[in-house]
Amino acid sequence: MNLNLFIMNAGHHEAAWRHPDTEPHSITDIRYFQRLAQTAEQAKFDSLFLADGLAINKNIKHGAFVGLEPFTLLSALAAVTERIGLIGTVSTTYNEPFHVARKFASLDHISNGRAGWNIVTSGSEFEANNFNKDTHLAHSKRYTRAREFLQVTTSLWDSWEDDAIIIDRASGAFADNGKVHEINHVGDEFKVRGPLNTPRSPQGYPVLVQAGSSEDGKEFAAQYAEAIFTAQQTLAEAQKFYADVKSRLAKYGRHPEQLKILPGICPIIGRTESEAIEKEQELNELTVPEYGLNQLSTMLKMDLFNYPLDGPLPELPGVDEINGNKSRYQLVADLAKRDNLTIRQLIHRLAGGRGHRTFAGTAIQVADQLEEWFTQGGSDGFNVMPPYLPGGLEEFAQHVIPELQRRGLFRTEYAGRTLRDHFGLPRPVNSFSIRSSSTFKEVIV
Amino acid sequence: MNLNLFIMNAGHHEAAWRHPDTEPHSITDIRYFQRLAQTAEQAKFDSLFLADGLAINKNIKHGAFVGLEPFTLLSALAAVTERIGLIGTVSTTYNEPFHVARKFASLDHISNGRAGWNIVTSGSEFEANNFNKDTHLAHSKRYTRAREFLQVTTSLWDSWEDDAIIIDRASGAFADNGKVHEINHVGDEFKVRGPLNTPRSPQGYPVLVQAGSSEDGKEFAAQYAEAIFTAQQTLAEAQKFYADVKSRLAKYGRHPEQLKILPGICPIIGRTESEAIEKEQELNELTVPEYGLNQLSTMLKMDLFNYPLDGPLPELPGVDEINGNKSRYQLVADLAKRDNLTIRQLIHRLAGGRGHRTFAGTAIQVADQLEEWFTQGGSDGFNVMPPYLPGGLEEFAQHVIPELQRRGLFRTEYAGRTLRDHFGLPRPVNSFSIRSSSTFKEVIV
Repeated sequence: MNLNLFIMNAGHHEAAWRHPDTEPHSITDIRYFQRLAQTAEQAKFDSLFLADGLAINKNIKHGAFVGLEPFTLLSALAAVTERIGLIGTVSTTYNEPFHVARKFASLDHISNGRAGWNIVTSGSEFEANNFNKDTHLAHSKRYTRAREFLQVTTSLWDSWEDDAIIIDRASGAFADNGKVHEINHVGDEFKVRGPLNTPRSPQGYPVLVQAGSSEDGKEFAAQYAEAIFTAQQTLAEAQKFYADVKSRLAKYGRHPEQLKILPGICPIIGRTESEAIEKEQELNELTVPEYGLNQLSTMLKMDLFNYPLDGPLPELPGVDEINGNKSRYQLVADLAKRDNLTIRQLIHRLAGGRGHRTFAGTAIQVADQLEEWFTQGGSDGFNVMPPYLPGGLEEFAQHVIPELQRRGLFRTEYAGRTLRDHFGLPRPVNSFSIRSSSTFKEVIV
Repeated sequence: MNLNLFIMNAGHHEAAWRHPDTEPHSITDIRYFQRLAQTAEQAKFDSLFLADGLAINKNIKHGAFVGLEPFTLLSALAAVTERIGLIGTVSTTYNEPFHVARKFASLDHISNGRAGWNIVTSGSEFEANNFNKDTHLAHSKRYTRAREFLQVTTSLWDSWEDDAIIIDRASGAFADNGKVHEINHVGDEFKVRGPLNTPRSPQGYPVLVQAGSSEDGKEFAAQYAEAIFTAQQTLAEAQKFYADVKSRLAKYGRHPEQLKILPGICPIIGRTESEAIEKEQELNELTVPEYGLNQLSTMLKMDLFNYPLDGPLPELPGVDEINGNKSRYQLVADLAKRDNLTIRQLIHRLAGGRGHRTFAGTAIQVADQLEEWFTQGGSDGFNVMPPYLPGGLEEFAQHVIPELQRRGLFRTEYAGRTLRDHFGLPRPVNSFSIRSSSTFKEVIV
């Protein structure tokens, strides 16, 4: 079972910062994140992961997703950890592939092979407005750009063959010109000559992660992703998603094991079940309705402020009109309908994981849930989203992980050194080396 | 006297990687850079600095400027140091201001107020070709863009007032909406709404550094820069440059002390003068003529491969035709003419510092040189460029710095915590706070 720790400032629950055991003043303090990373590494998590966005709404009265930038933060975490993978979110819509390829190559060198890239296409107009654009790129166009972006970055990572650097002091030969390549990419979106100015990194490519679960997202994941973060509320839905995505890999010449599917879980852990449920209620009662309404209105692309909190959701627009996170929109709409929730109830259901599954129970019950999904074809592991930090991580590390280890479901020691080792993923073969050796080998992309 | 350590892979001399005491295999090993940073911090350097470019020529046979990316590298150095400033080079021509503002704010948080930005406009066609462009932006256009880029980034750094975050758990007030601002920048180059999604950092802005010495560069520095790295071969030239740049500040409402002028010096240190000179000759003899010719041809925008190495430089194009580093072009052309150098001699003269001053002598003689320039109106300090690393840094730290300290020219302990403290620079007042308090205060930009 693969476990990724999803770190979110004071915790994933939207009221986490109001919880007395959190440290909301520390969201720009690197020592806080270094402690979290070290705790996760002691618990043998495969990796830790940082979400990211490129804009905030200026209404931040009751909370906001602000803080440190992923590359700088992950690099400072690399310096104080040895084994845990470091996955950062970077948008293909508002970046240049040369910069992104180089920063990930650099992070992979600095961490000695522990970098991962959560590839996102960005979901909001707010982000467009910070990058010279009045409107957000349409959903399918974003994925077209993302595909070409990946072509460019993977070529740049291959532009230095592994043995390009010679360093023969006597003859004055620093590198082998025949093993450093221009990529000469010319496409609809990008024109990039290369080579990269950073030599090939320990993992070759960072582990490629994807988190969109729309049709476009699933197809993109089947082609490129090596891990996928996804929101699934029930085992049945998770199984359907798992089977669906895995079945798409063959057409890209890939094996099902080359993509790890990791649904999100926000575990609220108590010594007894009732203690856990009380904890959840306490957290939910700390939510500010105005903040929840704002989040929900943004997610559903509909102003909900004029509807009664204790009444039902109004009629929603169709998913075709959503140019953002389409799958999350659908999940929330379905959830409200299926369980016949009022707006307030829906806000509470989403407060812990923004659409990811929340589960309150004892450590044993949490382990039971994870085991069930893992053994029943619902997942290859989980994206663990502690409701509050650092406490929620510590409880998971101290009580759930040992239980998973007792059951033989989770490692007790790291077997390898790189994130690819932890996930059991092959190191990508260099496409230029293939060409020059004229021998065909399996390549990931 | 302010001292900045300019770190360049195996050292500044172009043959450094062939020197037996360097570690050229370590150019992607973070531990190597961490050792250098810690050595510099023990020696009480104000800061360390990394140059950067966004392309390499694919001819890397005899050496190349490749390695780690500045933000990731500096952030990993921040994690293992406490006081030394961390200055990274970032181009305004091939970046977006939102990303740059955010990464520097993040680095400044992570380092607790030690970030500096060496603002460059990029100098080569090679770089354009990695970013969707066939041709490089003209020199003056690059500076026009740089000015607007600075307007945007400084506004974004101001978009969070210092006391915007409240975190009142009882009332649910996370931040004060009145203290987080959209910037709504609309200009010729950029349209950026803001606010930034990273709160204001310890220094407010990173220390702004500039390294262009052309007319455009000097004027830009006078308006924005707080430190300037410059190549000056003689005291007379340094004095002229110093007086020129400092005299330009008044028109932007700035005081001369608000800009530190730091000429480069590549010190080759021996126990005796003759040992130092021998060292220099040894290094020069390790240079590969083909590499030097390539560098010189690029710098002068002229193919020199068909001219005899031991003959004079041919007639050069005029400086107006140079769309790159204009001042460096002029310096090299003047140097060759003044000292009547053959091509080979010029290559050797440039091998240590690429146009920066090289000086071979004892530690006392080096200290004498620094003292003379510093006390005679040639500089506020120096950009120290060890010819080979780590040895050249260790020699400077062990022998030159104690001598400067004995003379009362350099600190024996850090007095402050931030890079602004070390340089004696004020923390920028937030332009939004000024507006909201209706009180005029001095602002840096």
